[in-house]
Amino acid sequence: MAPRSTHAAKPLEEESFGVLECAMGEVKHLCLVKFKEGVVVDDVLKGMTDLVAQMDMVQSFEWGQDVLNQEMLTQGFTHVFSLTFASADDLSTYMGHERHAAFAATFMAAIEKVVVIDFPVVIAKPPPPAAA
Amino acid sequence: MAPRSTHAAKPLEEESFGVLECAMGEVKHLCLVKFKEGVVVDDVLKGMTDLVAQMDMVQSFEWGQDVLNQEMLTQGFTHVFSLTFASADDLSTYMGHERHAAFAATFMAAIEKVVVIDFPVVIAKPPPPAAA
Repeated sequence: MAPRSTHAAKPLEEESFGVLECAMGEVKHLCLVKFKEGVVVDDVLKGMTDLVAQMDMVQSFEWGQDVLNQEMLTQGFTHVFSLTFASADDLSTYMGHERHAAFAATFMAAIEKVVVIDFPVVIAKPPPPAAA
Repeated sequence: MAPRSTHAAKPLEEESFGVLECAMGEVKHLCLVKFKEGVVVDDVLKGMTDLVAQMDMVQSFEWGQDVLNQEMLTQGFTHVFSLTFASADDLSTYMGHERHAAFAATFMAAIEKVVVIDFPVVIAKPPPPAAA
C-alpha cells in the first residue's frame, strides 16, 4: 500500500478526544465558491458533473447552494463542491490529470473568490446505519 | 410534513444538468475555521464532539484538517467541520438549542475567522455501494 504522505503529521488514531472513526483513509477536496456576476452556474455544474463522471478516481461528488444567505457568516460564498477520494493518492492523481487542468481553467475564470481545503475525513459521529 | 422553507427557490429536481440524486432532504452545516494562535484545537474538538453526541437531531458529524497548506487556496483556513441533518427543520432546531448557543460562544472566542455555509445536499456522483 502506498504511504499516505499527505496525512497530518500526528496520526489521527492518537487523538485524545472521545471515540473517533476514520473513514478508511477517505480524503475530501472541498471548494467554497463565489461566482462572478453573470456566470451561468448550471453550466459550471454541468461541466463539473461531466468531468467527475469521467474520472474513476473520484469516489463521490456532492454540492450545494447556501440557503440561509447570512452574509456575515458566508462571507459572500454561495456554493460548496465536495469531492471524496478513497486515498490521498487518488486525490493527487485527480489534481494532476489533464482533464482536471482543462476544467480548472474554465472554473477559475468563472469565480470571484474561492477557498479550497483538502483533508483526511474524521468521522466523529457516524451516520445511523439506515440514514434517511 | 413541514415545508422546507429554507430550500432553494428552484426545486433541485428541475435542474437541467445530468442525472442528479438528492440525499433525501439532507442538509449540511459546514464551517471553515482558522483558530487563534494558542488555541488548543483538541479541546475545541472535544467540546464539539461531546455537544454533537448529546444532540439527537445531528445525524452525523465529520471534520478534517487541511493537509496541503496552500495558503493561496486555503486563505488561512485550517479546519473543516461538517454537520449533517435529516432536514432543514432539524438544522433549525439545532441552531436554536441552548446547548448549541453555549458552545457557540466558546467556539467563536477561539477562532480568528470562519465561513459558514448551510446547504441541501445534492449528490451528483453517489459513492459506490461498497465504498472503501
